[in-house]
Amino acid sequence: MKQKILLVVLDGLGDRPEEQHNGLTALEAARTPYLNFLAEKGACGLVDVEGIGVRPGSDTGHLSLFGYDPKKIYAPRGTLEAAGLGVVVRAGQLAFRVNVATVDLKGRVVDRRAGRISDCSVFEPALSKIKVGKTQFLFKAGVEHRGVLVVTGAGLSPNVSSNDARVQGEKELEVRPTDGSPQAEATAAIMNKYLKQAKKVLAAHGANKKRKAKKELPGNALLLRGAGGAVLLPSFQSRYEMRAACVAGSVLEKGIARALGMQVINVPGATGRKDTNVLAKFLAAKTALQKNEFVFVHVKGTDIYGHDGDSAGKKAFIERIDAGAKELLSMENTVVCVTADHSTPCQLKNHSGDAVPILFYGKGVRRDATKKFGERECAAGGVGRLRGLDVMNELLNLAGRAPLAGA
Amino acid sequence: MKQKILLVVLDGLGDRPEEQHNGLTALEAARTPYLNFLAEKGACGLVDVEGIGVRPGSDTGHLSLFGYDPKKIYAPRGTLEAAGLGVVVRAGQLAFRVNVATVDLKGRVVDRRAGRISDCSVFEPALSKIKVGKTQFLFKAGVEHRGVLVVTGAGLSPNVSSNDARVQGEKELEVRPTDGSPQAEATAAIMNKYLKQAKKVLAAHGANKKRKAKKELPGNALLLRGAGGAVLLPSFQSRYEMRAACVAGSVLEKGIARALGMQVINVPGATGRKDTNVLAKFLAAKTALQKNEFVFVHVKGTDIYGHDGDSAGKKAFIERIDAGAKELLSMENTVVCVTADHSTPCQLKNHSGDAVPILFYGKGVRRDATKKFGERECAAGGVGRLRGLDVMNELLNLAGRAPLAGA
Repeated sequence: MKQKILLVVLDGLGDRPEEQHNGLTALEAARTPYLNFLAEKGACGLVDVEGIGVRPGSDTGHLSLFGYDPKKIYAPRGTLEAAGLGVVVRAGQLAFRVNVATVDLKGRVVDRRAGRISDCSVFEPALSKIKVGKTQFLFKAGVEHRGVLVVTGAGLSPNVSSNDARVQGEKELEVRPTDGSPQAEATAAIMNKYLKQAKKVLAAHGANKKRKAKKELPGNALLLRGAGGAVLLPSFQSRYEMRAACVAGSVLEKGIARALGMQVINVPGATGRKDTNVLAKFLAAKTALQKNEFVFVHVKGTDIYGHDGDSAGKKAFIERIDAGAKELLSMENTVVCVTADHSTPCQLKNHSGDAVPILFYGKGVRRDATKKFGERECAAGGVGRLRGLDVMNELLNLAGRAPLAGA
Repeated sequence: MKQKILLVVLDGLGDRPEEQHNGLTALEAARTPYLNFLAEKGACGLVDVEGIGVRPGSDTGHLSLFGYDPKKIYAPRGTLEAAGLGVVVRAGQLAFRVNVATVDLKGRVVDRRAGRISDCSVFEPALSKIKVGKTQFLFKAGVEHRGVLVVTGAGLSPNVSSNDARVQGEKELEVRPTDGSPQAEATAAIMNKYLKQAKKVLAAHGANKKRKAKKELPGNALLLRGAGGAVLLPSFQSRYEMRAACVAGSVLEKGIARALGMQVINVPGATGRKDTNVLAKFLAAKTALQKNEFVFVHVKGTDIYGHDGDSAGKKAFIERIDAGAKELLSMENTVVCVTADHSTPCQLKNHSGDAVPILFYGKGVRRDATKKFGERECAAGGVGRLRGLDVMNELLNLAGRAPLAGA
């Protein structure tokens, strides 16, 4: 009998031992009775999402977990972020991820996030009005200082560099061609002209005047990265013969889900931030499983606490996730899997290649001796050590949905 | 000093937890003192025969265990089955697996196995007499309702589909070309004509009149699948520098062994069924090891009980295997390996991608803490988790026969 599948990805969950937790990780230190129940009744292991010691991005990490080899497919970040904001990048168009930033008069980046400006949708009309020759631009705001820029014109190439030095205090870079093609050269020139125009438009913008008056950093420059053209991935449904839905607050994960043809469910309170309503997301996932065979739930907060280096906060957030995870105990005819796209150790404030824990729970799982959902408990679990690309195969197998390899 | 190798494959051995065994698998629940002795004195692990979560066929599973990557070699099932019945498919010929089946007057398949007809060799002469133009046919009966059909003619292509809808009650299909070639189109037309002729011949056959008189289902139609041309695999002996023999009752495994150039030893009582004489097979393997460096023993019954969903029967059959396995304790100068080609969980009644247990026993093995041969004991074993293609490498290594990778 075929079962359904619920895949819960806790972004950046994996971590390293912390003195403040007596040598435990945030997850190991957290009180997580419900996740522990799933681990105890199920089977656990570790996942090297993109290979041992490889440090995954959230984009490539998720694609790997969905069984799409990021080394073999074309799915640039700009395009995925645009999809997450509901903008489909068509053939011939380009999409960039954008930070609205603060630069000083010498062009040095004072703040890559313009003081984590709360909403930059106010800049959408002005930034979308600019033209460079016949090339047109659409700026779409995302969460906080983030957005996407979609470029429409002739002969555009995604092979251009970022203008973001990614270090505060450094000077903003020029966009440059990354291959020798005239298209990339022309595209870089167009983008540099656009960025210059954008600075003028932003400097004169009323919203920035108000920010200055309130002594807030102005959003007076754009940092672009992740240039990408149209992507056409084989749909999740055609590949796995399951209707699929996504419950996520973050733009990128919504974008990946849309690019794979999943239905994206917007849940009130699912913010993609620390203040997200995890319980609401799990409840929405249960509802979504009535009409779908596969539901993906993404929780971003764990990663944010990791980037902030706040291990106590991460631990407390994991305990909030656990409270919501009570809902996962009563799933019928469903294989439940909880894992992460990568580790974000608080002591690194960044992604790492440390393996992430994984648990499988449901009928047919070879229950192992794991009692607690944690990195080192999972390392001793019966599942052993998987690669990210194995996870969908294992889920299909447990759910009785794996195709036969032979005849 | 080089050792010999005995590889025992218990078909479909791996399973999932069963309530009737208090959450143990059939193997875990079985009383297996001799296999446990081997596990305790040896080292254990798990094998993902074709990759984690991948559901192997018996053909691709065995090829993987023998170190032949089924993704890289051409070894279609029809050709392997023909080899198992002693028929070598030569260049230009085609082989199909055949079920003798029962269809009703409307062409609907009433029974894909013609009431598991006990022997269809009685149909061999009549089915082998039919000609379609200049194309000739050889029908060779296998076990029960199964057989192979070897086709000899000009311009034949293996790229044709099966006429077997694989669902009882559904109408028999037409054979169709699966590529756009004129050869495949011509082959499909020839096979459809043959199948029509075969129905006439079978309808008029005396054996079927007798079956009807006994109220048994007649064998009045053929279902073809697994079309294949000649295969030429690098022989096991040339590849591994070991004379190799096979002790098996099942047609497919004999066929794979023959296709690899192994000597196939026919053991009285080795039926490839539940009633097989396991002890006789192990004794024959011991004898075969006097003149060979490698012996492969295949036991099919575990898989049959899995397909039947009979976990109690599987457990009892494993205990019978264990009684025979006493013979494996006293092998001299031989590395013994016991594993499976795939799992066949009783609750799925089909193959699954669950990892299978493996044990290595013999001089030089790094003995681990495993006390019992079972899925979860092996998961904690010292061997860790192998791929099917690793198994021959590990055996060659333990036997002191591995070539040096470097210089």
